[in-house]
Amino acid sequence: MSTFTGAQLVHHVFFWLKNPDSIADRDALIEGVRGLAAIPTVRALHVGIPAPVEPRPVVDGSYSVSELLFFDNVEDQNTYQSHPLHQAFIATFSPLWSKVVVYDIGGR
Amino acid sequence: MSTFTGAQLVHHVFFWLKNPDSIADRDALIEGVRGLAAIPTVRALHVGIPAPVEPRPVVDGSYSVSELLFFDNVEDQNTYQSHPLHQAFIATFSPLWSKVVVYDIGGR
Repeated sequence: MSTFTGAQLVHHVFFWLKNPDSIADRDALIEGVRGLAAIPTVRALHVGIPAPVEPRPVVDGSYSVSELLFFDNVEDQNTYQSHPLHQAFIATFSPLWSKVVVYDIGGR
Repeated sequence: MSTFTGAQLVHHVFFWLKNPDSIADRDALIEGVRGLAAIPTVRALHVGIPAPVEPRPVVDGSYSVSELLFFDNVEDQNTYQSHPLHQAFIATFSPLWSKVVVYDIGGR
């Protein structure tokens, strides 16, 4: 078991695709997310899709792709937001998605 | 930069408190979440609160507490769900919350 450092910032983004049945669109977005790891302030990256768990009323499995990033702090995320690679990611892949929800979490 | 193993399961839970202005309730829940790290199949745990980021329409900062757990696979999460420590956590702290949203994400 490991815990994260208290200061660490979690940036969790959920994407809903315009064509949720398109595996090609989904996999293109997954590859795009993976490329964000090249931005220097990104400390760790997890990309995924809804897991095959038992359906429960509290579980939201309606999204297509999950992007989970770790930064050392809010400033490092600001650097990421304005980084050319992140801007190119948005320009390239935003036509694929219909909705995005973001959670930014400060460690305790 | 590090990436996670492809198979790793992310279990992300967001809690909305009945009394969102109660720091005491919030901190009690945070301590409760921290205790879940004792369950053997939990590989990593991050607990936090909304970070002080620039407000954006896509950012949901309305929750009180975030619980982020990593498991090796779905089976390990099933073991966690039925573990006595997790059941005790629900019994003790569920009176504090009004809403829970769960995302279970399989790595790609």
